[in-house]
Order: sequence, then C-alpha cells, then structure tokens
Amino acid sequence: MTYCVALKLDHGLVFMSDTRTNAGVDNVSIFRKMHTWSRPGERVITLLTAGNLATTQAVISVLDERTKASEDRTSSLLETPSMFQTAQLVGATLKEVIKSNADTGQKADSTFNATVILGGQINGTEPRLFLIYPEGNFIESSPDTPFFQVGETKYGKPILVRAYDPAMSFEEATKMLILSFDSTIKANLSVGLPLDLQFYENDSLEPGFETRIMPDDDYYNELSNGWGEAIKQTFATLPDYKRPKQ
Amino acid sequence: MTYCVALKLDHGLVFMSDTRTNAGVDNVSIFRKMHTWSRPGERVITLLTAGNLATTQAVISVLDERTKASEDRTSSLLETPSMFQTAQLVGATLKEVIKSNADTGQKADSTFNATVILGGQINGTEPRLFLIYPEGNFIESSPDTPFFQVGETKYGKPILVRAYDPAMSFEEATKMLILSFDSTIKANLSVGLPLDLQFYENDSLEPGFETRIMPDDDYYNELSNGWGEAIKQTFATLPDYKRPKQ
Repeated sequence: MTYCVALKLDHGLVFMSDTRTNAGVDNVSIFRKMHTWSRPGERVITLLTAGNLATTQAVISVLDERTKASEDRTSSLLETPSMFQTAQLVGATLKEVIKSNADTGQKADSTFNATVILGGQINGTEPRLFLIYPEGNFIESSPDTPFFQVGETKYGKPILVRAYDPAMSFEEATKMLILSFDSTIKANLSVGLPLDLQFYENDSLEPGFETRIMPDDDYYNELSNGWGEAIKQTFATLPDYKRPKQ
Repeated sequence: MTYCVALKLDHGLVFMSDTRTNAGVDNVSIFRKMHTWSRPGERVITLLTAGNLATTQAVISVLDERTKASEDRTSSLLETPSMFQTAQLVGATLKEVIKSNADTGQKADSTFNATVILGGQINGTEPRLFLIYPEGNFIESSPDTPFFQVGETKYGKPILVRAYDPAMSFEEATKMLILSFDSTIKANLSVGLPLDLQFYENDSLEPGFETRIMPDDDYYNELSNGWGEAIKQTFATLPDYKRPKQ
C-alpha cells in the first residue's frame, strides 16, 4: 500500500507521501511517489501516486517523456493551458496505461489500478487540487473537502478531520500531516518512512520547499513520542464513564 | 459495515458494538450485534458479529435454538466443556451457514462472509477471548494482542493502540472505546449509534453490567466534544515543523 495526502490551504498547497511499496510483506522497497514538473514563472504541477507500482511508474514516465520529446510536447504537462486540462491529460494517460496492461489477458484487472492526486498552479489561474481515478475521471477539492488522501487512508483520517484549518501555516500543516502519517505507520506495515514533503506557495509559480523526512528525523520522533504522551494525558483528563443506576 | 471491539483486561472483559447495518447507503437499519447466553454460576458467553446480516442472524438463531431444543442440547453453547470447544462450535456453525448459502449458485462467496468475536468464561477455566473467521478457524487474544476488532476497524485503532492498558478499569475502558467508536462514526457512515456495551467481571460467572448508549447520551456527547477540543489544544501545544536551512 501507500499513503499520500494533499491539502489546500488559504496560502498554498501541501503534499506528503510515504515511500514504501510492497509485493507481499517479504518484498518491501522504497520508491518515490511524489513527482513535480515546473516551468518557473509559468507553472508547477505535482503528482502523488498510489496503487500498482508498474502502472504508476509507467504513467509518470509517459508524462515525463512527453515533456521532453518535441513532437509530443503540445500535449505535455508543461503545455496544458489549465489545471483542468492537466487533470484530463493525467486521467487519460492513467486510463490508457491500465487498459494496455489489462488487455494482455490478465483477469484481475483491479491489480493494475492506481489513483493519482494532482495539484499545482498555472499562470493566470488559481491553484487547484484534483483526485484522479483509475477510470480517468476526477474530482476537485472544495472548501468542504479541502484535502485528498490516497492509499491506506483510514487510520490517519480522524486527525485531519479534527485539526485541519485552511488558515494554518505550512509548518502547522506539516505537524498535522506527520501525526496522520505516524498513526498510519504505527497501525499498518504497508506504509513506511521516509516521507516526502513539499510546499507550494500560491502564485509563486515555482517549486516550493521540499524535503525528505528520514526515519531518524528528530522532529518526527519528538512529535511521535510527544503525541503519544499527550494523547495519554488528554485521555486521563477526560471523565470516566459512570454506570447509570440500574 | 459494522464496528465491534472486545477487550481483555486484568479483571474482566469489555464488549462494545454498534448497531448500524446497511445495504447501500439508502437502506440503513438498526440491528443488535451483541448476543449473550448464560447459566449463572456456571458460564457466560458473549458473541459480537460483523458481516452479512443474513449470515450472522442465522448463526445466532442456530446457536440459540440448540440451547433450547432438548435433543441438540449436548452440542449447545450452554453445554460445551471449555471456551476452546465453544469457539469450535461457533466456528463450525458459522462455516456451515456460509457454505449452505454459497452452494446455491451464488458466485460472490465473500458476500455471505461474517466474522465473530467470542468472549466469556466457563466455571473452572479462565476467561478467554477469540476471533472466529468465516472459514471456521479462530485465534485467541494474548497479552501482546489483548483486543479484537471486527468490521470497520481502521479509524478507531490508533486510540486503542495508544491508550489500552490491561490494568484499566471498566469505566476507563469504556471511555477509550467510546473515543474509538466516535472516531469511526465521524469518518464512516456505515457505523452508527446506538452502541451496546457490556462488562464481564472475571469469575463472576454471571452477565455483568449492560447498557445501550443512545445518540442523545450526555456522556457520549460530552466525551466526543471534549476529545475534539482536547485534540485541538494538544495539537497546538506540540512544536510546529521547522524548515531546515537549505
């Protein structure tokens, strides 16, 4: 599995993805699931991928090659006139890759499925965030649903639901995301460190701060331990259940 | 879906189950998923069920009828000599019910699947807790894995992992379980109030305290709101991320 989250804040976008891939529990590897293309001053496009690794790597490669081959460049990530058309391009590529593998006689077609989060901004338009399905169609974030998760999404959802605030800073959002990832990592072996983190500041039109949080990261470990302790203390301060008189 | 949890504490067992069943989101009903048989002074047996409602109801009915029909009584829940043999009986019944439905030409055999948590005590033996699979086999809890969840288990697992302590009181355990259920209910429509709650005190050999927590329960709502507030405050006290100098 995988766990990736993208958030839309008032002043920008935040992306976080884990790096663990596995084929069974005895075949575990580290792969990057966050990919960015940019033409500074004009556009920044970031994808987070979850699902079959052969599919997601093929999608990334096809999209990347189109940005380089001159004859294909007009339909590349670096040329699309809007984020909506970028989402259409990614969706069509994803659908095409899944279809080409499923056509080879493989029956369990869900095996090749993948889901993609797309976020970014193109000059002259607003920053936008999309969730793209294996069928190639997609949905966009809104003030009611300001974040998207893909992969192993359930463990880490409660903290996002409770703590998300569109006015939060990149640094606060990172804290929230690390807690969401830590809850997931503690409960599920298929999600693991290191974590990739990226900020995009609205209207900057250039790739923002980006880093990889390693397993020995001091802040990650301080937060993980601190949160565990704080949860226990908070738990202790809430009133215990009282049995009604029967 | 469903969400049920059973915990083994130093001094007894605690069971909690939701009551929502659904066939699609437009067909939602309330059904009890917690069932208890007892012969005071000799044994108490509690089952929590998750999965296909026709299957779980059939399993409960078959088990219940055997405790009443005199010719079948020797292989009933009220006559098994040990909790292990009780788990075998429930497992065999579950497997048989699933098989009898799957044999009618239905291809999606997983559709009829169900999973059962069994807990209780029989005079002269220790209290024990089992998780019984649709295939009829089962596992037992241990100090390393002192609780079982069935149904929609992921949202509510982090709080159990963080807060569980075998020495906790029934009242503290109830607080923890309500938080686990509340996280699940906030994130997933297929789990809903009211919640059934039951305690079993070791060696009491009679059904313990039991109640149904309704949607307007003051304690539930106080805890749900209090936890939300406390999480936000705790979150605010932890240090924000600091970007390393690049």
